[in-house]
Amino acid sequence: MTDLLAEGRELDARDPLAAYGDAFVDAPGVSAYLDGNSLGRPLRDLPSRLEQFVQHDWGTRLIRSWDEQWMDLPTRLGDRIGALCLGAAAGQTVVADSTTVLLYKLMRAAVDAAGPDRTEIVIEEGNFPTDRFVAEGIAAERGLTLRWIAPDPVTGVQVADVSGAVSERTALVVLSHVDYRSGALAEMSAITDAVHASGALMLWDLCHSVGVIPTELDACGVDLAVGCTYKYLNGGPGSPAFAYVNARHHGVLRQPVQGWMGAGDVFAMSSAYAPADGIRQFISGTPPVLGMLAMQGMLDLIEAATIEAVREKSKALTDLVVRAFDEELAPLGVRLLSPRDAALRGGHVTIGHPDFAEVTKTLWQDGVIPDFRFPDGIRLGLSPLSTSHEEALSGVLAVRDALG
Amino acid sequence: MTDLLAEGRELDARDPLAAYGDAFVDAPGVSAYLDGNSLGRPLRDLPSRLEQFVQHDWGTRLIRSWDEQWMDLPTRLGDRIGALCLGAAAGQTVVADSTTVLLYKLMRAAVDAAGPDRTEIVIEEGNFPTDRFVAEGIAAERGLTLRWIAPDPVTGVQVADVSGAVSERTALVVLSHVDYRSGALAEMSAITDAVHASGALMLWDLCHSVGVIPTELDACGVDLAVGCTYKYLNGGPGSPAFAYVNARHHGVLRQPVQGWMGAGDVFAMSSAYAPADGIRQFISGTPPVLGMLAMQGMLDLIEAATIEAVREKSKALTDLVVRAFDEELAPLGVRLLSPRDAALRGGHVTIGHPDFAEVTKTLWQDGVIPDFRFPDGIRLGLSPLSTSHEEALSGVLAVRDALG
Repeated sequence: MTDLLAEGRELDARDPLAAYGDAFVDAPGVSAYLDGNSLGRPLRDLPSRLEQFVQHDWGTRLIRSWDEQWMDLPTRLGDRIGALCLGAAAGQTVVADSTTVLLYKLMRAAVDAAGPDRTEIVIEEGNFPTDRFVAEGIAAERGLTLRWIAPDPVTGVQVADVSGAVSERTALVVLSHVDYRSGALAEMSAITDAVHASGALMLWDLCHSVGVIPTELDACGVDLAVGCTYKYLNGGPGSPAFAYVNARHHGVLRQPVQGWMGAGDVFAMSSAYAPADGIRQFISGTPPVLGMLAMQGMLDLIEAATIEAVREKSKALTDLVVRAFDEELAPLGVRLLSPRDAALRGGHVTIGHPDFAEVTKTLWQDGVIPDFRFPDGIRLGLSPLSTSHEEALSGVLAVRDALG
Repeated sequence: MTDLLAEGRELDARDPLAAYGDAFVDAPGVSAYLDGNSLGRPLRDLPSRLEQFVQHDWGTRLIRSWDEQWMDLPTRLGDRIGALCLGAAAGQTVVADSTTVLLYKLMRAAVDAAGPDRTEIVIEEGNFPTDRFVAEGIAAERGLTLRWIAPDPVTGVQVADVSGAVSERTALVVLSHVDYRSGALAEMSAITDAVHASGALMLWDLCHSVGVIPTELDACGVDLAVGCTYKYLNGGPGSPAFAYVNARHHGVLRQPVQGWMGAGDVFAMSSAYAPADGIRQFISGTPPVLGMLAMQGMLDLIEAATIEAVREKSKALTDLVVRAFDEELAPLGVRLLSPRDAALRGGHVTIGHPDFAEVTKTLWQDGVIPDFRFPDGIRLGLSPLSTSHEEALSGVLAVRDALG
């Protein structure tokens, strides 16, 4: 491990993104934060951004700010995420609600528009619970069937898994781009093609991709996507989610939570609901402005660094962690629960051991903060702009010491 | 008007709540803010509250804050709103989502649980658009009929309007406690009784009540309620809404947006959705923590002042504005679009004139900020803890001058 630590320090010394680490607030008592895939850290300039917002935008411009800047914020911010992270042209991405609520809206929009013979939603049995729960509820209320894919839990869903599950009965396929457990990365383009070959629509959950792995939604012909902004976009706890709806579906797909902010003329107070053109129909209620502030600073950083460079550093970080695992943790009986090839892996590395529930408690008290996932997984989430190579390695060493 | 201005100053001088005005941030260039019923003003201590949150709760405790304080925040804050403002015992109120999304969840929960013969939703044709749009969408998707009440637009919905509309076919009645246009106050107890006599459920929209008019949801036997927190609770633009579900419906009514945060065991990552007991089932996604901070300061103020005293000042403010209207605006052809009796009126006074679209533009530029509502209404929204009697009168004078 001595060699690896030296290598980590060397990587940090020539890391072109290293300086971005100073952009985040200090966390006294925390020596390694390895949960950026659950909750990204706040930026150092956020309090002054919030102060300006409170004093000026809200406190002085008051209600006038809706006209001046807030009404368009969901689409302006959506476009920015789309351009910087998603490969999405303007007008297809919007920030709103929570991931769960957006999943409901988009899944309902998709299955409600499907032909009467398309009675199945294909979903992976290891997908994040909220994705499965939403699908389960919609299937029950719309009289549809869930068709489960059961891929290998480490390597994740493959094209063949999907091809074998879709048919002329499929209305919609819902998958995560990066598996929340293993970090396995799905082949977006090939899988989307396989879904389209069956005549179904494809919805990607990008919660563990956005901000750390570039996607090409337009180029892949993706129909629908959702994602969260409090992981690698550092929007803060419970910051609103985003939805992408490909322009070819605008005016065709309709989400069911019809609200005044998704109406064509918001202030007409008209007697019947007439949806807005374009992505705006997917908004329902008043946009959560305060929750949209923090992520803007992180988008500035990603724009400066470029998402491609962020992805390169992400691969280097997880590679180093896998090598440290081989040296230090495998001999202790810890299992690697993530793909070994960085090209097949997202921004986190997952390891397993029966003692990890207890180990996590110890680590948290000691200021080393990974993420525990039931029943016995530790996820080492490495947010490239705020995490150094040495910090990542120190996390692995802390796990080793806690097990010893 | 000279006498009224003197009276206003006298009322301010002996106003027991006058000192609370200092709790709000200064708004340079704004001489009268009369739109507290659309967007309440931020508190002076909010930036330091946000700084503490960014540096400590989020920035240092990081993911640990979910266990330490955030997971329970939606119900803890809901209970507080329930106790201070709603007459609701603990365990029935939760903060989440937007008003629109919560309206969807609660309306769906109600109509989905109704018997097959209860095929109608009763709603008022002048209700706020989002309430009507949500009901319209649900009626379409569930094969239900909307039955419209058309009350007098100034005096608002009366018991007789409701009694005449409900029947054994009614599943749900949806009404606003305070009419967003006229400010007319509905008789919550008598109307709820009339709805219950028909065997239907009652959902009250409290957007224009909460924080300015005490309600007694438990005592009135109300089934369901929603409300927003960015008006008289000063939660900031797009802060999350709240839902009240009477305890007798827990475990019976089920909302359709099944998410991980509404599951019985959030982190079990179980294979099928099992709803949480109690009000927590009405949560779907990750709670919007940042959006729940600002309202906490306002709840502190309301607790100190008491909601009853807030209501008393609200009546005094609107009374004064109505008297000023009689003196200064009625002679110019302006119409009073709110009830004259303060006991029948909420926290705002609405006036009408064909020139008000233009007048509002002029006033906004001059730092006098009421609310314009299509086609020709100005609402003078008076938030009792941040608005003085003199400020309210100066708003009326500014309208007069802009018309002259």
